Amino acid sequence: MEELDILHRALGSRLVTEAAEIAKYARDSSRELVAGAAQAVVLAESTADVSAALSWANAAKVPVSVRGAGTGLAGGAVAYEGGIIISLERMNRILSLDVPNRLAVVEPGVITAELDAAAHQHGLFFPPDPASARTSTVGGNIATNAGGLRCVSHGVTSDAVAALEVVLADGRIMHTGARTRKNVVGFDLTSLLVGSEGTLGVITAATVRLKPVAPGTPRTFRAGFPTLESAGDAVTAIVNGAAQPEVLELMDALSIEIVESYFPSGLVVPEGAMLVGQTVGVDAQAKAEAITRTCLDAGANEVEISESDSLLEARRLSNPALNARGLKLSCDVGVPIAALSEVFRGIGEISRQHGLRVSTVAHAGDGNLHSAVEALDTPDGILAADAVLDDITRLALTLGGTISSEHGIGSVKRHELPWQLDAVTLDVQRAIKEALDPHGILTPDRAI
Amino acid sequence: MEELDILHRALGSRLVTEAAEIAKYARDSSRELVAGAAQAVVLAESTADVSAALSWANAAKVPVSVRGAGTGLAGGAVAYEGGIIISLERMNRILSLDVPNRLAVVEPGVITAELDAAAHQHGLFFPPDPASARTSTVGGNIATNAGGLRCVSHGVTSDAVAALEVVLADGRIMHTGARTRKNVVGFDLTSLLVGSEGTLGVITAATVRLKPVAPGTPRTFRAGFPTLESAGDAVTAIVNGAAQPEVLELMDALSIEIVESYFPSGLVVPEGAMLVGQTVGVDAQAKAEAITRTCLDAGANEVEISESDSLLEARRLSNPALNARGLKLSCDVGVPIAALSEVFRGIGEISRQHGLRVSTVAHAGDGNLHSAVEALDTPDGILAADAVLDDITRLALTLGGTISSEHGIGSVKRHELPWQLDAVTLDVQRAIKEALDPHGILTPDRAI
Repeated sequence: MEELDILHRALGSRLVTEAAEIAKYARDSSRELVAGAAQAVVLAESTADVSAALSWANAAKVPVSVRGAGTGLAGGAVAYEGGIIISLERMNRILSLDVPNRLAVVEPGVITAELDAAAHQHGLFFPPDPASARTSTVGGNIATNAGGLRCVSHGVTSDAVAALEVVLADGRIMHTGARTRKNVVGFDLTSLLVGSEGTLGVITAATVRLKPVAPGTPRTFRAGFPTLESAGDAVTAIVNGAAQPEVLELMDALSIEIVESYFPSGLVVPEGAMLVGQTVGVDAQAKAEAITRTCLDAGANEVEISESDSLLEARRLSNPALNARGLKLSCDVGVPIAALSEVFRGIGEISRQHGLRVSTVAHAGDGNLHSAVEALDTPDGILAADAVLDDITRLALTLGGTISSEHGIGSVKRHELPWQLDAVTLDVQRAIKEALDPHGILTPDRAI
Repeated sequence: MEELDILHRALGSRLVTEAAEIAKYARDSSRELVAGAAQAVVLAESTADVSAALSWANAAKVPVSVRGAGTGLAGGAVAYEGGIIISLERMNRILSLDVPNRLAVVEPGVITAELDAAAHQHGLFFPPDPASARTSTVGGNIATNAGGLRCVSHGVTSDAVAALEVVLADGRIMHTGARTRKNVVGFDLTSLLVGSEGTLGVITAATVRLKPVAPGTPRTFRAGFPTLESAGDAVTAIVNGAAQPEVLELMDALSIEIVESYFPSGLVVPEGAMLVGQTVGVDAQAKAEAITRTCLDAGANEVEISESDSLLEARRLSNPALNARGLKLSCDVGVPIAALSEVFRGIGEISRQHGLRVSTVAHAGDGNLHSAVEALDTPDGILAADAVLDDITRLALTLGGTISSEHGIGSVKRHELPWQLDAVTLDVQRAIKEALDPHGILTPDRAI
């Protein structure tokens, strides 16, 4: 505890050591993990605070967990036994909003939806829109390279990050990237940091790219399919069509039933699955019509176009609805678009083999699936559900897919890394980690 | 030479040691650099060849330069004294073209325009289009994160790379990325390798993203402006407008004169500058009309819209025209879009201060300028031209810009790195280099 006094002198009341307070910052939104008892929370208010905390932790060889809003789903922000927690929630200022260059500079603790709202005041928007946007932070989104509904049209978080200020493990401050559209000066350290899940440095400021809001009234569309596979075929056709959606989501029949039982809205439950999405721009109606025609050609029973975006509400409620059911065990796999039908067919087989019901929602236009297993909240139930998810994950990999599309690895999926990455790649990641954090204090034993 | 025998046994006739042959592979397209006398050229035909060559070089601690078509402009592929050269020109197969997933897997020596042509047979195209596309290779484009005319609408090369096969300095083979649209598994090693200019590994295969060709007939548009600054203002307005161009280029009056004297086409030389670009899609005409209206609002004297793309030909001829004049000393700076007018005004001042004429072409929509100085091809003339370019570069940096937008650092711009990057960032880059290439054999002392 003497050591911690040094840090206390640097940070004053921004260093919190009360166990009850520490406990509030010890977890993220991955429910199955046990957090270690950290020594302290640093309620950082500046880059200097983060630098002081890391300098101290590096010298003391104390593990550090880093936390935005704690909405992560992979255990990346869970506290370490004897560690310190750096909370960035107080670093929540939008430092600048440069409209002509469509750039914003923000502190990491800015809530994602608040940045988006600030941009909207100037006819712009912040493209990344994870389901957690109203609670998660820009810094957390960057650290995990978060996805969301608009990825199909606007890419992932990394596509929206131009430059970063990063505090390294030893407390030094690094600046990556540039305010320009193109920049080929040195290694792309910005992209290396995006998605590094707190293992290479702590992001203390980010220059992000905004986009102009499309003119006109968006249209939402919905199409009901007799089978999950035919909905998958429609996705491939839509993505390869001339009219491109802003959003293209999928819900299977069971996932719609789960939402309807949580919040009844009178939504038609199709036999197989529903595609739901949005088009924007002055030609939003024409694009929605073209896309729903493609759906009918691929076997949809019925389609609907609306100026209200309430059709998307069911998709947005799928996480809360699953959480309300209690145990939520789901995956985050991705496949190349054209493999969607095949992965859906395989999921059906796996579900039957294991005798457990699987509900699937998908960022369909990205080939990113969240399949959830209905299981008992008992050790045996969890084991059985995990076996289903493992089979789905391995199936995705055989189809050229990925074990995680947007949630990250954290500690939850770390055992799956060798399923996707070869030994050389894993070794190179460790070498980079050691080069930047030789004492291994930053989010140790996670992500890679 | 005994050592080289070991490599000869592995590679047979693919190891070339004739000095005249080696000399053919010793240079890139940066004219001022002296190449070292390499021991040998490896005409690699497979990943195994590259691996054998690097294993040998790593053990023998022999420096390695890596070469696609030698079109680089920064000296990145110039041979080292006593080194070996790995040429990838024979690894020129398109290994697969997956139309539904819009992915191609290619060897690094595929000519960029040939990949684009192969994709066109399926209604797709390969977005990166550096001016050198008809001669440069996909591998070289990736290694330098090359730009081009379509970046304003389709991003840079890194945006088109999904996955890589890379041979590391010690000969081990690494696989990065995935075939999916989203992938957050481990560090983004793909982006780290893209633009690393041969310093971290040799790319032996790349999975690249293709896009669908837009329907309809493209339109080209041209607008003449009384001043360079008013053209710069028009660019900011266009980029922030509703109608987005596929291509948006700028040529100042002097650069048009240089092209017209090289290949007269009767092009009107405006008083200040010309914007020239292209729109695509079924609404190409409407978009071109909207953009030219924006130009008139920003002060253009006259505008033109055409279904022929001959208007872009002058822009494409600017490099050959400059090269035909002999000495070509130019920069590759970038600025945030809204700073274009200011950098143009500053270039005018710098030109007057030094008493040397400067011609500027720009990938205007990206804020990427290539200003060339008219100077005598003498040591004093080169010094004087370099002083002008240094001033332009420092001006770009004060406006939040970059020293290189698309050509890379290589050896030519290495002295400028500390102008843009802080000491910590430079140190991190060196640490990553050492972690991946501890003996420093891969393109040593360049890029970072």
